[in-house]
Amino acid sequence: MVESASSASRKSGLPPGTLVHVGEVLATETRITILDYTPEGCSEHVATTIGEIAQYRDTDSVTWVNVEGLINIDIIEAIGEEFEIHPLVLEDILNTGQRPKYEQYDDYLFLVFKVMYPAEDGGAVNYEQVSVLILTDYVFTFKEKQDAIFDSIRTRLRKPRAQYRNLGSDYLAYTILDAVVDQYLALQDYMDTVIEQVEDDLLDEPDADTLSNIQRIRHELIFIRRSSAPLRELLNGILRSDSELISADTLIYYRDVHDHVLRVTDAFDTYREMISSLLEIYNSTISNRMNEVMKVLTVFASIFIPLTFITGIYGMNFVYMPELKWKWSYPVLWLCLVAIPVVLLRYFRKKKWL
Amino acid sequence: MVESASSASRKSGLPPGTLVHVGEVLATETRITILDYTPEGCSEHVATTIGEIAQYRDTDSVTWVNVEGLINIDIIEAIGEEFEIHPLVLEDILNTGQRPKYEQYDDYLFLVFKVMYPAEDGGAVNYEQVSVLILTDYVFTFKEKQDAIFDSIRTRLRKPRAQYRNLGSDYLAYTILDAVVDQYLALQDYMDTVIEQVEDDLLDEPDADTLSNIQRIRHELIFIRRSSAPLRELLNGILRSDSELISADTLIYYRDVHDHVLRVTDAFDTYREMISSLLEIYNSTISNRMNEVMKVLTVFASIFIPLTFITGIYGMNFVYMPELKWKWSYPVLWLCLVAIPVVLLRYFRKKKWL
Amino acid sequence: MVESASSASRKSGLPPGTLVHVGEVLATETRITILDYTPEGCSEHVATTIGEIAQYRDTDSVTWVNVEGLINIDIIEAIGEEFEIHPLVLEDILNTGQRPKYEQYDDYLFLVFKVMYPAEDGGAVNYEQVSVLILTDYVFTFKEKQDAIFDSIRTRLRKPRAQYRNLGSDYLAYTILDAVVDQYLALQDYMDTVIEQVEDDLLDEPDADTLSNIQRIRHELIFIRRSSAPLRELLNGILRSDSELISADTLIYYRDVHDHVLRVTDAFDTYREMISSLLEIYNSTISNRMNEVMKVLTVFASIFIPLTFITGIYGMNFVYMPELKWKWSYPVLWLCLVAIPVVLLRYFRKKKWL
Amino acid sequence: MVESASSASRKSGLPPGTLVHVGEVLATETRITILDYTPEGCSEHVATTIGEIAQYRDTDSVTWVNVEGLINIDIIEAIGEEFEIHPLVLEDILNTGQRPKYEQYDDYLFLVFKVMYPAEDGGAVNYEQVSVLILTDYVFTFKEKQDAIFDSIRTRLRKPRAQYRNLGSDYLAYTILDAVVDQYLALQDYMDTVIEQVEDDLLDEPDADTLSNIQRIRHELIFIRRSSAPLRELLNGILRSDSELISADTLIYYRDVHDHVLRVTDAFDTYREMISSLLEIYNSTISNRMNEVMKVLTVFASIFIPLTFITGIYGMNFVYMPELKWKWSYPVLWLCLVAIPVVLLRYFRKKKWL
Amino acid sequence: MVESASSASRKSGLPPGTLVHVGEVLATETRITILDYTPEGCSEHVATTIGEIAQYRDTDSVTWVNVEGLINIDIIEAIGEEFEIHPLVLEDILNTGQRPKYEQYDDYLFLVFKVMYPAEDGGAVNYEQVSVLILTDYVFTFKEKQDAIFDSIRTRLRKPRAQYRNLGSDYLAYTILDAVVDQYLALQDYMDTVIEQVEDDLLDEPDADTLSNIQRIRHELIFIRRSSAPLRELLNGILRSDSELISADTLIYYRDVHDHVLRVTDAFDTYREMISSLLEIYNSTISNRMNEVMKVLTVFASIFIPLTFITGIYGMNFVYMPELKWKWSYPVLWLCLVAIPVVLLRYFRKKKWL
Repeated sequence: MVESASSASRKSGLPPGTLVHVGEVLATETRITILDYTPEGCSEHVATTIGEIAQYRDTDSVTWVNVEGLINIDIIEAIGEEFEIHPLVLEDILNTGQRPKYEQYDDYLFLVFKVMYPAEDGGAVNYEQVSVLILTDYVFTFKEKQDAIFDSIRTRLRKPRAQYRNLGSDYLAYTILDAVVDQYLALQDYMDTVIEQVEDDLLDEPDADTLSNIQRIRHELIFIRRSSAPLRELLNGILRSDSELISADTLIYYRDVHDHVLRVTDAFDTYREMISSLLEIYNSTISNRMNEVMKVLTVFASIFIPLTFITGIYGMNFVYMPELKWKWSYPVLWLCLVAIPVVLLRYFRKKKWL
Repeated sequence: MVESASSASRKSGLPPGTLVHVGEVLATETRITILDYTPEGCSEHVATTIGEIAQYRDTDSVTWVNVEGLINIDIIEAIGEEFEIHPLVLEDILNTGQRPKYEQYDDYLFLVFKVMYPAEDGGAVNYEQVSVLILTDYVFTFKEKQDAIFDSIRTRLRKPRAQYRNLGSDYLAYTILDAVVDQYLALQDYMDTVIEQVEDDLLDEPDADTLSNIQRIRHELIFIRRSSAPLRELLNGILRSDSELISADTLIYYRDVHDHVLRVTDAFDTYREMISSLLEIYNSTISNRMNEVMKVLTVFASIFIPLTFITGIYGMNFVYMPELKWKWSYPVLWLCLVAIPVVLLRYFRKKKWL
Repeated sequence: MVESASSASRKSGLPPGTLVHVGEVLATETRITILDYTPEGCSEHVATTIGEIAQYRDTDSVTWVNVEGLINIDIIEAIGEEFEIHPLVLEDILNTGQRPKYEQYDDYLFLVFKVMYPAEDGGAVNYEQVSVLILTDYVFTFKEKQDAIFDSIRTRLRKPRAQYRNLGSDYLAYTILDAVVDQYLALQDYMDTVIEQVEDDLLDEPDADTLSNIQRIRHELIFIRRSSAPLRELLNGILRSDSELISADTLIYYRDVHDHVLRVTDAFDTYREMISSLLEIYNSTISNRMNEVMKVLTVFASIFIPLTFITGIYGMNFVYMPELKWKWSYPVLWLCLVAIPVVLLRYFRKKKWL
Repeated sequence: MVESASSASRKSGLPPGTLVHVGEVLATETRITILDYTPEGCSEHVATTIGEIAQYRDTDSVTWVNVEGLINIDIIEAIGEEFEIHPLVLEDILNTGQRPKYEQYDDYLFLVFKVMYPAEDGGAVNYEQVSVLILTDYVFTFKEKQDAIFDSIRTRLRKPRAQYRNLGSDYLAYTILDAVVDQYLALQDYMDTVIEQVEDDLLDEPDADTLSNIQRIRHELIFIRRSSAPLRELLNGILRSDSELISADTLIYYRDVHDHVLRVTDAFDTYREMISSLLEIYNSTISNRMNEVMKVLTVFASIFIPLTFITGIYGMNFVYMPELKWKWSYPVLWLCLVAIPVVLLRYFRKKKWL
Repeated sequence: MVESASSASRKSGLPPGTLVHVGEVLATETRITILDYTPEGCSEHVATTIGEIAQYRDTDSVTWVNVEGLINIDIIEAIGEEFEIHPLVLEDILNTGQRPKYEQYDDYLFLVFKVMYPAEDGGAVNYEQVSVLILTDYVFTFKEKQDAIFDSIRTRLRKPRAQYRNLGSDYLAYTILDAVVDQYLALQDYMDTVIEQVEDDLLDEPDADTLSNIQRIRHELIFIRRSSAPLRELLNGILRSDSELISADTLIYYRDVHDHVLRVTDAFDTYREMISSLLEIYNSTISNRMNEVMKVLTVFASIFIPLTFITGIYGMNFVYMPELKWKWSYPVLWLCLVAIPVVLLRYFRKKKWL
């Protein structure tokens, strides 16, 4: 969840542009899948050499190169050379601690952002960095690991008459972004459930676990926000962009993703406020309870301590204590022992402690 | 109140532009009422086919199509096709988790926002999404359910010499927005009463209920703000818009709604501040009370514990305790038993605990 | 202080532009006073008909029409018709829940803002809405009630050689704004005194009254800010305005008022910070005191409870308790009873509790 | 420190432009010192009439007129007339509650700001308003009292070959501003020391004095910020100004002052954060200590109350209590009296209270 | 860590542009190392006179002059004269309390910023000011002390075929900035570890040390932010700059550094939020524990105080107490002594205190 302690600075001291995978190294083999499509058809295969990737350069088809796992630096470097990608861009792709951003180059657009989804065991949130390169007829996606987040896009593109196949690489990039933001919406639902759970706990029986839950969610929301907030800038950048790589017709779709991102970041901000508010309520509840406990102690102690004092007096062994020999002393004393609590209880009731 | 946990992500995995009703599905039948008017007259009827809706396209009249209930996707899709509405707009209409926004298209304007009103049983706030399409002579409104919020507009348009009937679809859209913002003002009044109630509780006898009331209101205000704040942008968008669909004469009316929205969002911000401040006061009050309780306990315990100790001494059974046999021991002891509390009470009074 | 619960929504359901007095209805008769002046002279009288008001339209004099009390809607409607004021402006004048604002129309300028002054009995702050219409040779002011806030202006204009009589309606409007902002400065002085009072209370002997005072001031400051902050925008609007109704020479005076408003809103922001800080200090003080109380209790209880235990031991009635019969038992026990507190007190002193 | 309660509104009711000294009236005689210099030489004298001030108008020299003490309104009015200063500017000079600001007029520039320096007795911060008028060859400074803050400038100008004497009135005004900002830096050092002192107190032995110190510093920082923050705008105004009165060469010096002001306001913001943080630490420390106290009380009470109960049992005077007569009762009881605390202390140690 | 108390104002009273080393004076001898390189070769030596520094002025090589230690003002003044640096720039170089900033002059660019790195002994953060002057073929760096932060750059430049040697002084300045920002990333990793440590402490066993750790980190983060946040502006300044000294090709590298700075300042902001949140959790935990302690005390006291009272009654020495002589009194009393705790414990369990 937190970037591993060793990640941010691993590159310190290396010259800029040196390609090293910086980030928690995931032992995922690099797997490159190519999906090439025209309105008429669609072909898929797994590539291992740069030649297989570059072979579609002179065709009219749109080619989606999905690189999963960032260990194999050679192939990424080869892609960089073949498609004339700036070394700093390649460096950013390999360093998985990137801040989401959008960069416009003459021949390509570069996007980098995070996919976030709740872990399946209901625990912490998973983060994965996705980099996207948009070229005229190519879209490259670079992911840290192999997972299913792009499966729905692939399924749709495979359909014989998919209308999406008429549209260019800019539309493909949009569907990728859209799939990622859909993950955010799923995360929003998940947080919704989790926060509702904490709210119920608070009403029911708040304890130290509730507190650590609140803390955990808050912590998570800080990281979610750090990953999602810059996405607004990223999309603003695309919307204001003058690049020819994104057609005016497609821009309206990016505007739609922008709306979704606004909605989801609004929601996360709301959750942050709610969590702050829940913590305050937790504290007030604890104070309230301490107050209750103190009242009980005070009532008990204040009633019995004077009574015990009285019994102490007549437990003394002085030779000359006339009361001890009076016949009615004991019953009269009992009257006192009953009267004192009655008076005190009235007083406490007046003070609204009972 | 909170979007249901399953709502935000229901569309995940579907291609963009797929029309599915996303949101808490309300089992409301779709009911379409048409109100068509010219300065001379006004006709109303319930429509069930797209033909009935489209029949006014070539007339000079202004036609208001009010669609209540979003289950019947077919008819909404038909409207989209007939009036050439962008699929993403139709998608937004059907997804009731929209952030309020304004979008300008060549042939129409699209507004989406929330109606908010206090539930009749004094409980939570009701939220309903309203989408508005403004075309040259048509206004479409899409609502989640059937209710009375537009009745006053309808009543006014039916009046034989309604001056409003001279004005175009932009003015009709304004009256709809105005009716919605009037609901916000009613909600403001309601929150006013509720907060005043809590303030009275705080002065009177704050308890755990007061706390949960404060929490409930705060929660509600977070959601109210999330729904109302973007309305300022929406109206700013309209005011700065260069669309020919809104005439300069009507803009002044939109400016008026804008003022109302500013007023109402100012008020909600004020309430948020007041609720925060009430929570702090609540906590301080609880602390104050605990202090009072502790003082009573301390005074009682500090006075009687030493006295009990003294009685304990003379309750001991040592054979050689000369005081026990002295004649004046008991009265002298009583003097001590009276003197000690007097001294302690003075001390406590000096410390201002009494 | 707070807008009455019924005010914000009273107009709900009425068509826009309907003239109804919305706001706490003050049972003040509408009183219209006219002050017409030229450099040479100045005449004053009370008007009751629209004719009396409109008679100066073709003269070169500057005419100030001061309408106090908003019950008589007819005369206000008549003014609207005679001087061609937009119905929405008239509506705003009558609705006393306006947010301060500035609107520029072709033939007139419209300002609406709040006068605030401390109530004479030292209690809450009074709010009164003032609307100003600036026409070429006319200034209209609409007030909720009859009071003395404009008396000083009137006195000055009556002076035989008042230099101000040379200047136009824009300068008159400025003097009115200036008089209102002077009231704000008086309010600032009042808040200053009140906050200083609370600060003294805090140093002296904070109690629940101090808390409710802090809460009351905070509450008041929230409302003062809501009324004063938009005045900055209002004056910015005037300063950036291109209306011919305000001459370049007069603008410098409006800039001066703007500075005063900045100063006064700065001061109110400062007070808000100070009040927040006072509440925190209050809470810390309460905690501190609770700590003191707890220490006393702990010292008392911790010293006497062990001693009482010891006396309890030798108060037991076992037949075989050898110590009871020893001759030096009692004096040795007294040594213990003295030694134990000494040791404990040293311990507590080391812990810095004494 | 705080503006005196009567200051803000003293002018209420007077016509705008009326010259009255508003502010805490300092009983300082007005003293006017003139320093006139050319690259060749420099003459100084004390002026009492407007003639003495105006005599340098037609020379090439730069003339610095330093007015200390604002009681003598006549001379200030005379300066205003002679040099054609706008009445509102004169009013601002005399009203010592100004917000720092910069105003550009055709023939002169007007600056007003605060000098702040720690009082010599280590107490509160002193505030003094300084107004500066920059004319072509004249610089006027108006100060509330006579002090030494400009002495260093004067000393430098007196030096035979002072390079500064080549430069115009804009450079002189810069050196004045620079001297004022140097005072801010001294104040920053002072606050640094004061806060470090409080930090040490917190680590050492925080008590109610620490709390009131924190409160005092916080209060002071609120006022320091109110006086220093607008200086950024003031300097921004000068830097963006197109006035011919400030040459391009001198602008670089104003940029330098701007940097200093940024630095110093950054530092004050940092101190504010640190003070907030110290207050939180203070509160946490108090809570921690209360916890310690409570634990001691609980340990003492929980150990001895059961023991005392046991001794109470065998102190009862029932005739039929077999244990009392058993031979080993007393030693066995002692075993219990030792065992019970041992068990309880283990329990408390397990709970980490010891 | 904090600027020494005497640093900010040492220059007060001196004329602007006077060269004095302001800041904590580090007793480091000034050491000047020159690294001159062309694509073909690279020479290094230590310089002591201005002649040695200026000798490369007419060559095509790029010359990096690294000045470590700011005590020797003469040589810095000589550099200023030789290369026509503005006196205010030299002043800024010598004053080590600068706010990070970028200034563009006709013939050179001036950058000043802080290097930050964790102290080796795991204690506080070290701050060092670095000033950079970028001329056509020269780069000057001025550092407070001699350390290894630029060693990696030097090593790379020495390599026979270093591609970097083809690029101009703008690229060299970039590598310097990049090396500094790499230090920030290392600091980020360090803070990461430190905060994780505190989080573990909080879960484990929070005590007063945890509190002072939180306070120390918070304090440190305030200073880190004050040093790092202005770096964003600095880089924005460079990116928007129109200076010919920075070529378009190099700008892309500066954009990369800008991204790194955004990332690192984002991270520091996140840490600040986390630390605030940890403090709140700490307080809640302390409250929770106090609650636990209070419950134990209350349970103990409430059970044994009534019991002790009962034993007190039968410890009284009245002659007429019939119960004392009854045969079953003692066993019946034992029944009571057992029953009362059972009832009370049930009550407390119902209240969920056990």
